[in-house]
Amino acid sequence: MENKQIKNQAITRQEDDFAQWYTDVCRKAELMDYSSVKGFIIYRPYGYAIWEEIQNYLNKRFKETGHQNVYMPTVIPTSLLQKEKDHVEGFAPECLVANIGGGQKIDDPLIIRPTSETLFCEHYAKIISSYRDLPKLYNQWCSVVRWEKTTRPFLRGAEFLWQEGHTMHESEEEARTETLKMLEIYDDLGRDILAIPFTKGRKTEKEKFAGALETYSIEALMPDGKALQSGTTHYFGQGFAKAFGIQFQGRDGKLNNPYQTSWGVSTRLLGAIIMVHGDDNGLVLPPYVAPIQAVVIPVAQQKPGVIPAARELEKVLKEAGVRVYLDESDKTPGWKYSEYEMKGVPVRVEIGPRDIENGVVTLAKRNTGEKITVKKEEVAEKVVELMDIIHKEMYEKAHRYLLDHVTEVRSLPEMEKALNKGGYSKMMWCGEQACEDKVKELYQATARCMPFNQMPFDETCPICGKKAKKVVLFAKAY
Amino acid sequence: MENKQIKNQAITRQEDDFAQWYTDVCRKAELMDYSSVKGFIIYRPYGYAIWEEIQNYLNKRFKETGHQNVYMPTVIPTSLLQKEKDHVEGFAPECLVANIGGGQKIDDPLIIRPTSETLFCEHYAKIISSYRDLPKLYNQWCSVVRWEKTTRPFLRGAEFLWQEGHTMHESEEEARTETLKMLEIYDDLGRDILAIPFTKGRKTEKEKFAGALETYSIEALMPDGKALQSGTTHYFGQGFAKAFGIQFQGRDGKLNNPYQTSWGVSTRLLGAIIMVHGDDNGLVLPPYVAPIQAVVIPVAQQKPGVIPAARELEKVLKEAGVRVYLDESDKTPGWKYSEYEMKGVPVRVEIGPRDIENGVVTLAKRNTGEKITVKKEEVAEKVVELMDIIHKEMYEKAHRYLLDHVTEVRSLPEMEKALNKGGYSKMMWCGEQACEDKVKELYQATARCMPFNQMPFDETCPICGKKAKKVVLFAKAY
Repeated sequence: MENKQIKNQAITRQEDDFAQWYTDVCRKAELMDYSSVKGFIIYRPYGYAIWEEIQNYLNKRFKETGHQNVYMPTVIPTSLLQKEKDHVEGFAPECLVANIGGGQKIDDPLIIRPTSETLFCEHYAKIISSYRDLPKLYNQWCSVVRWEKTTRPFLRGAEFLWQEGHTMHESEEEARTETLKMLEIYDDLGRDILAIPFTKGRKTEKEKFAGALETYSIEALMPDGKALQSGTTHYFGQGFAKAFGIQFQGRDGKLNNPYQTSWGVSTRLLGAIIMVHGDDNGLVLPPYVAPIQAVVIPVAQQKPGVIPAARELEKVLKEAGVRVYLDESDKTPGWKYSEYEMKGVPVRVEIGPRDIENGVVTLAKRNTGEKITVKKEEVAEKVVELMDIIHKEMYEKAHRYLLDHVTEVRSLPEMEKALNKGGYSKMMWCGEQACEDKVKELYQATARCMPFNQMPFDETCPICGKKAKKVVLFAKAY
Repeated sequence: MENKQIKNQAITRQEDDFAQWYTDVCRKAELMDYSSVKGFIIYRPYGYAIWEEIQNYLNKRFKETGHQNVYMPTVIPTSLLQKEKDHVEGFAPECLVANIGGGQKIDDPLIIRPTSETLFCEHYAKIISSYRDLPKLYNQWCSVVRWEKTTRPFLRGAEFLWQEGHTMHESEEEARTETLKMLEIYDDLGRDILAIPFTKGRKTEKEKFAGALETYSIEALMPDGKALQSGTTHYFGQGFAKAFGIQFQGRDGKLNNPYQTSWGVSTRLLGAIIMVHGDDNGLVLPPYVAPIQAVVIPVAQQKPGVIPAARELEKVLKEAGVRVYLDESDKTPGWKYSEYEMKGVPVRVEIGPRDIENGVVTLAKRNTGEKITVKKEEVAEKVVELMDIIHKEMYEKAHRYLLDHVTEVRSLPEMEKALNKGGYSKMMWCGEQACEDKVKELYQATARCMPFNQMPFDETCPICGKKAKKVVLFAKAY
């Protein structure tokens, strides 16, 4: 916990200025701070701890599915990044380039990694030579740097934290399976701990990753009606493998290039958590990623017996596996209530002289504001139970919002109306980029994905009138 | 596990060429690989997993002692690094500097962090204003970049992984206590999981960290007689705090500058593990950092019943909490023995048709080569027990070596002889840098530390003949 008192002034209300509300929450909940370099933020303890919970979850899932962590260099020689044509075109405009090392000019300037496909491929070319060496299932936790012009905390930054998986497979089928398997794990992350319902689907050609054959994504819908791409998985085929000369002798004795995938989620997920669940009192954290799951607030703490009772509660909750924090500071209970509301702590545990007298404790749920009185001896059990209840309530609320904001559109006016309402415009699409471009031009909305759940509802593309091939979700997006 | 077969040729013997032996082990045990940029290495899964065990241990200890993880930017504006004079002088010669971002020249070029004191201080200046905000106990896991001319895997690299703690305190006493407390945690790390006895002490003025008032270190002794600085903690006093304008209102109402510490260990510890424990057959891993603690090798695995018995062993060991790996590949048992010896797996579990018949299993200890036959039903218990036994044996062996290589010297010829033998020359020192310089000039040895365990054994400094003030350990060092 930060000891510094939060300036307890109100934050901007969501309906007044959603973007300002977002920034206010990032700052006031002490998730991050700005550094003196534009776009490079400081991940403060409270924000970083949420990321650590995400790491714990994913590391477990990655390990269960046979993946191994590695660490590649933080820099990529310019010549190496240029080996795959589409890839370098995608990333060149936003590179941070170092060309002085130890006071000397560097001949082949070093790019601070924006993503590490090229580094993994260079290494794989050295260590793969037989089908026995496959699959290679590597993952890396690191930060990447992309020199973005407009930046926002967690959502778009010059530097962000992420994991990037890079795998090599013997067969196309195995690589395709991996690409979808990892997307499922990301989807599970949303359902299991973020309390965010993601929409899964495939990206259009226009929106896919630089150098990939296919890109899949999980998209989350924000309360301002905009979509947030929250994670992607890519199927590369043999493109990079050929460019980097990665070959293996197959079971048939012939040389072949392996099939590749990559996949990643980033601290952008913190942005999703903040927006999907937050309210005018600040952050509302899903219990399983909350650094503090329950905060104990003593009321009238100067009265005899209150602090000991509060400490006892802290102890009992800790023993029950709850991430608990007891605030014994000399701030008023009301001040503390606001502070931990701002920080989105799922459950507040209040204990005062009268509660002690009656052998009870009051629990307050951050997500609904509900207050529950429970017997002292049932506190641990009840709080553990509440973790699950709150998680489910938060997921359900977000899911209802999502369902309310998917509109099937059969014409441009319908699309305009739907996009103005906010959320996804579900459209039958001919598959031509021209129509995708047209939507962007007219409404600044992009194709978020072709959802896995394809349920055609019309025959023709409302843009060009040609035969429709795919259901596509359009939305304004972060 | 890497699937790729290790080329099973012998490695260089230690006595033939210790440096080449070291590099051979790094490569053949698949701990690392080189990238195309000099000094930037690839931490391969087997090497990275050892680092993760170190992280797990330290994260737990840091958390227990109230520390919080954060993440600061990967870049430092040149102007920011220059704020503390001694500090920038220490680091300027080895900076990697980026001055192109998104195709544009950057006015205040960005240094890829060589260490983050300046970033922490800039942030602390913003978030500290009262004694209530103290202490701030932050830690960061990241990589740092130092443009070194000569590099060696893990020991000295252009990029390495580390943790850097940066703390701010209300009083000098509290900060000094922190500086020593963290050194103790590093010492515990050696005793508890690395099986390395460290020597703790204070650095001389000449050897201290750029900008620190006092530096403490843990030093490990390598089998070639050279010392390896394995971790440091620094007490800064108020120097940086003044340079960065960090002030807090004290309990007395007056403004004051906080007292600062920083401390770190890095992947250099992997180099210490390799050298302290390794032998001519490769790596010998201390059980508690070993990614694989026991490897099950089926003998005559084509015979009926062998593979099922091996899988049963794997299951039983896994359930007992042992990090176990079953190698079912079609390599010969002999090949596999060499492979896991190279990888330093603490215990090899052999199971063949005869063992099955007799209801036994053979355990082979990597550190001593000993073989033990145990009843099948006692395997898990015995292997768990062996973890502790092997750990202690390895620690004891390293400790005996250390004790054998500390020589009290009372004259220059004695020092020369001791340094030629290898290890520490324990000398009474007058405290003058001139004498320190003299030792370096004569024998290329440096003052490793003034050990906490000061037991004066002479009156005068053997270099200048003046009154001796401190016991110092000199050694050649990495």
